[in-house]
Amino acid sequence: MSGNAIDAEPGTVYLVGSGPGDPDLLTVKAKRLLEECDVVLHDKLPGPEIIDRLPEDRREDVGKRAGGERTPQSEINERLVELAREGKSVVRLKGGDSFVFGRGGEEAEYLAAHEVPFEVVPAVTSAIAAPAVAGIPVTHRDHASSVSFVTGHEDPTKAESAVDWDALAATGGTIVVLMGVGRLPDYTTALLEAGMAPETPVALVERGTWPGQRVATGTLETIVDARDEAGIEPPAVTVIGDVAGTRESVVEFLQNDYGAAGDAGAGE
Amino acid sequence: MSGNAIDAEPGTVYLVGSGPGDPDLLTVKAKRLLEECDVVLHDKLPGPEIIDRLPEDRREDVGKRAGGERTPQSEINERLVELAREGKSVVRLKGGDSFVFGRGGEEAEYLAAHEVPFEVVPAVTSAIAAPAVAGIPVTHRDHASSVSFVTGHEDPTKAESAVDWDALAATGGTIVVLMGVGRLPDYTTALLEAGMAPETPVALVERGTWPGQRVATGTLETIVDARDEAGIEPPAVTVIGDVAGTRESVVEFLQNDYGAAGDAGAGE
Repeated sequence: MSGNAIDAEPGTVYLVGSGPGDPDLLTVKAKRLLEECDVVLHDKLPGPEIIDRLPEDRREDVGKRAGGERTPQSEINERLVELAREGKSVVRLKGGDSFVFGRGGEEAEYLAAHEVPFEVVPAVTSAIAAPAVAGIPVTHRDHASSVSFVTGHEDPTKAESAVDWDALAATGGTIVVLMGVGRLPDYTTALLEAGMAPETPVALVERGTWPGQRVATGTLETIVDARDEAGIEPPAVTVIGDVAGTRESVVEFLQNDYGAAGDAGAGE
Repeated sequence: MSGNAIDAEPGTVYLVGSGPGDPDLLTVKAKRLLEECDVVLHDKLPGPEIIDRLPEDRREDVGKRAGGERTPQSEINERLVELAREGKSVVRLKGGDSFVFGRGGEEAEYLAAHEVPFEVVPAVTSAIAAPAVAGIPVTHRDHASSVSFVTGHEDPTKAESAVDWDALAATGGTIVVLMGVGRLPDYTTALLEAGMAPETPVALVERGTWPGQRVATGTLETIVDARDEAGIEPPAVTVIGDVAGTRESVVEFLQNDYGAAGDAGAGE
């Protein structure tokens, strides 16, 4: 079965997630495909530790173009088809998991429409891993029967906000926001207006599993100030809910040590 | 930094997720820890392909006890502390990710309360991977701005249902139910009553990434019949939302082939 294939097949595109950034959190399959494939198309989000290990003659940065603007998705789609039709084995590498706000679904549809065989290689998502290595489980029998993932980066062509913060607040479960540093004031306000308790714990994990990971903690009311004091910058994951409070009770014995001095962020 | 440690440290407990079941979807770190640690505590959920490769003299099955009943969590917690205090390097291996309905949060709290150093090793969650290898992205720019994970196995000590299906329906995002084969009629009814469209696509992925993976597809109205026709059994993941419809447009070129003959489940 191809699920256990040893080789990167010529003419096939592999939609591969890199995981949160620590090369040790690549899957066995992703690591092998990165070693064996003819070419890797990537942007910056997999992080320096993974990108810097890819041989330069086998990789193409499709994140930013000269001039600084973003490569349009249509151009990336076309390049994937072009390389596959040349008989190359192609890895399309995304940060986290390709199918969690990673546009992997669109790429899969484009490849299928152009009759290019492809395989999906699931990955560790930063949405779960970044909180986890900071000592925060996104679900907990005592605190959260559900967890919802949203992105702070909205498609600008969508109406004002496609995310229904009222409904998310009403679930009573954990809310995890990816890429949500900049809009933190907007959605914390929306959640307070939706009736969530001001003392609800919130944690921000910047560059989770990267060297120099940093954590800031607070509540729905205080997290914006905690972010500013700690100087938290993108990329970061926001965890909202009682589970965010568990960090405090476990962090002394937690051995996941990706952080530099900055790990002891504001609010701790 | 211990995040890149080569060795399983004596006296340390590693809370490790196995991923969805394909050994190729273990992380590099999980694979190494399983090879190097002194003892692995596991149940059946990591699946046969991963469990059967663990040497028998280094593993303890803490899933079922003689007689068939489940080992109480308290007993597992105590065993973890006991082994660590003997100076063993201990892997606590869970199916999927330990922190997604895996009780990893409780284990972390117990270990910290007993001053046992521990590390969290995040994994590929079946909630994302099982749909993905069946051609279903849990988010999609055109279809879903959020995704929520819930479990069909409720803590029996909780009130009737801690999951707010009305609120989940109102998010407008994808809903993924883990361990939700048995209660499928209950929550599809709840979601219809909450106002979700009867024609909302639904997919069931049984044993995602295991040998003999099977998929059944339908709608909120038809999926219970599709489940029964295909004879879908636990463990399985349920995906509810427009994204479940993308499988049809990509499956012809999808190379992830874990399935046996049963892959062409009812409703396809």
